[in-house]
Amino acid sequence: MKIIKTEKIFGGKFLNVFRKNLIIKNEKMGIWEYVEYNNPPRRAVIMFALTKNREVVLEKIFRAPREDYTIELPAGSAHTEEETEAEAAKRELLEETGFLAKKITPILSVVSLPGLINLELVYFFAPDVELVGQQECDDEEEIEVIKVPLDNLVDFVIEQSKTAKVENDILSVLPILRKKKLI
Amino acid sequence: MKIIKTEKIFGGKFLNVFRKNLIIKNEKMGIWEYVEYNNPPRRAVIMFALTKNREVVLEKIFRAPREDYTIELPAGSAHTEEETEAEAAKRELLEETGFLAKKITPILSVVSLPGLINLELVYFFAPDVELVGQQECDDEEEIEVIKVPLDNLVDFVIEQSKTAKVENDILSVLPILRKKKLI
Repeated sequence: MKIIKTEKIFGGKFLNVFRKNLIIKNEKMGIWEYVEYNNPPRRAVIMFALTKNREVVLEKIFRAPREDYTIELPAGSAHTEEETEAEAAKRELLEETGFLAKKITPILSVVSLPGLINLELVYFFAPDVELVGQQECDDEEEIEVIKVPLDNLVDFVIEQSKTAKVENDILSVLPILRKKKLI
Repeated sequence: MKIIKTEKIFGGKFLNVFRKNLIIKNEKMGIWEYVEYNNPPRRAVIMFALTKNREVVLEKIFRAPREDYTIELPAGSAHTEEETEAEAAKRELLEETGFLAKKITPILSVVSLPGLINLELVYFFAPDVELVGQQECDDEEEIEVIKVPLDNLVDFVIEQSKTAKVENDILSVLPILRKKKLI
């Protein structure tokens, strides 16, 4: 496959749509449409945090596209060029949940829906987080913090998934944390 | 949060962008932009298939947005109203990899990037899949099949994630398959 041209075909306040012209099989021409955020550009940070009581800190967050709540790991992105991704993960956790992470370990860098968006997701793990403050969410964020005992996390996701209201990555770091003996 | 209005603000060949006008905190107005595919509309199917030798069937697939390859589970969507999602998962596995699934179990229904797109992902598990044919991919799909021993899957994802070329859901069904004693 060979990319001939990339054009921006829509510019929104937050989202842009691009189209790539490609040469696909048998020398045929094809096109591929995808999106990019204005900000954050291409990397997001996601936090898997455990309290001292071994509870996972999750968020029930209103998502306008679905007009419904979904359950997700705390996430966001670096706000300045100086902020490291670990610092951003720590700040987002604190802002969105009130929990303070002292020790942070990078776990995994992956992609999600890579046919739709050029976005890398960087996962961090924080043990022993402590509730130190109030949420200070952005105006567009409507978040309720949910703590789920680590030992019940799989059952919790199975139960929530019956109504498809849980994000698919809540369980994806578990096998890695176990493999690395971090939990 | 209250949604006042939903408008389509861009229509592409494959992707549409919508904008919702919202009332957010303190009666302030906000907007949220998101995308929907024309087809499939709002549900995708994803297959976690194991060969008789307990190898996971993965795909190395060229993704135009990244101009690079990523490693993913076989996926797609129902092509007709008559096709069930289990049938679609079976067909996509066969077309994209040449492996035939005889027994299929639904595992999980979740969302991915729910702030960006209204899309549900339905995961299936198929044990003992057998290679019966050649790939018959769509013209836009450039796929290499990779088989990874189940026991090495976590290490494989850790290794691949160093270059962020792996999708975040490859490990997410593992804890559920273990919990349900399916693997």
